[in-house]
Amino acid sequence: MSLTLYIGNKNYSSWSFRPWLAMKATNIPFEEVFIPIYTDAKDKQRLLDVSPAGKVPILVDGEVTVWDSIAIIEYLAEKFPQARLWPQDSALRAHARAISAEMHGGFGSLRRECGMNIHRPIRAKALSEEARENIARVQEIWTDCCKRYGEAGPFLFGTFSAADAMYAPVVHRFRTYDIEVTPPVRAYMDTMLVHPAFAQWTAEALAETLMIERFEAD
Amino acid sequence: MSLTLYIGNKNYSSWSFRPWLAMKATNIPFEEVFIPIYTDAKDKQRLLDVSPAGKVPILVDGEVTVWDSIAIIEYLAEKFPQARLWPQDSALRAHARAISAEMHGGFGSLRRECGMNIHRPIRAKALSEEARENIARVQEIWTDCCKRYGEAGPFLFGTFSAADAMYAPVVHRFRTYDIEVTPPVRAYMDTMLVHPAFAQWTAEALAETLMIERFEAD
Ligand SMILES: N[C@@H](CCC(=O)N[C@@H](CS)C(=O)NCC(=O)O)C(=O)O
Ligand SMILES: N[C@@H](CCC(=O)N[C@@H](CS)C(=O)NCC(=O)O)C(=O)O
Repeated sequence: MSLTLYIGNKNYSSWSFRPWLAMKATNIPFEEVFIPIYTDAKDKQRLLDVSPAGKVPILVDGEVTVWDSIAIIEYLAEKFPQARLWPQDSALRAHARAISAEMHGGFGSLRRECGMNIHRPIRAKALSEEARENIARVQEIWTDCCKRYGEAGPFLFGTFSAADAMYAPVVHRFRTYDIEVTPPVRAYMDTMLVHPAFAQWTAEALAETLMIERFEAD
Repeated sequence: MSLTLYIGNKNYSSWSFRPWLAMKATNIPFEEVFIPIYTDAKDKQRLLDVSPAGKVPILVDGEVTVWDSIAIIEYLAEKFPQARLWPQDSALRAHARAISAEMHGGFGSLRRECGMNIHRPIRAKALSEEARENIARVQEIWTDCCKRYGEAGPFLFGTFSAADAMYAPVVHRFRTYDIEVTPPVRAYMDTMLVHPAFAQWTAEALAETLMIERFEAD
């Protein structure tokens, strides 16, 4: 029985990107199904037919339907322990979950003002005080991880983990909105940008032609 | 080594309520430390001294500091398997995590327009279309769970689980903002309202005297 991941437009759907990247990067096999989002009532109904929450991402595994990025990641971490989506050490795992949850439930201003839009030409825009605080906090999180666990590898917890997947869309945001970052943050972004699975999503996003006008205004 | 849970004002801090209730309801022993929130820079600094995210709830277990409600719950579920914070069955566990994550990352309009304020006199207020959609979706989630798993008990997954803890503040919101609910939803709310740990939090919230003016405006 194979897994199916329902995702939205690769250019815009930051939440879809997270579990997709987690699975690709750790070689969990799955089929992907694209449902265009923010289009019309028919597409929305397609989403609702798969999951009552009406949002992507959605993972279907036989009889089990799991929605929401972080619940999907927990499901995968249990089902594929060899993928090591979370760090093996319990203290590191707690840290990885804390920053992943902080991303999942927070950074509202950054998410609103700097929507993921991979094909957006690189240019700065004026940001609110709150968005700038969000950016500072993300940089603090990444820097702290790289300082603590950097000897084990270039990802947040040394080797690739679900925490990297949860922050992946922010890498594109920092890039496209031309956010000023510190050298260690830049190094982390570069690690992510050239990760093969990350680069595959980027390439596929750039190949999309569907435009959503209201996400193109800035 | 005992656990310490840092929480905010019981009357207002909906995120603190969730892991507190999860622990009390499943008899996980802990000490609680109150840090007033939305007060002044000194209290905010106390928060930041415990956790770099600067928000409650925060769980400290010896060397390990875990912040964010859902990461705390995952930490506890691993450390205290006998508490059965998540359902034992993997499909039910996936469902419980999906609705918990949906709460964690969503329902923004309901959360904004109907802030938890346990001592608020019961009265309806005008709500946006989005908040009303949020309310309908919560009722759909609860009704669906009670229909599926109701034979096993009156909580969302039969016996008490972390999913009940994640939705607990919504029970107070529905009550204080006088939201019209269906009979099965009312029955679930009543189950929660008289749960001993839920009732303890409510009583302690009502005993607080600290008022935050901007949360008292409606
Ligand atoms: N908390 C959810 C958020 C999911 C979400 O907001 N998905 C957006 C796309 S990135 C969506 O499906 N929007 C379509 C719609 O709301 O109609 C998660 O983590 O998966
Ligand atoms: N996503 C976080 C949210 C935590 C949160 O927003 N906590 C609020 C109180 S309910 C807080 O600490 N606010 C104080 C502040 O921001 O200064 C969680 O699930 O724990």
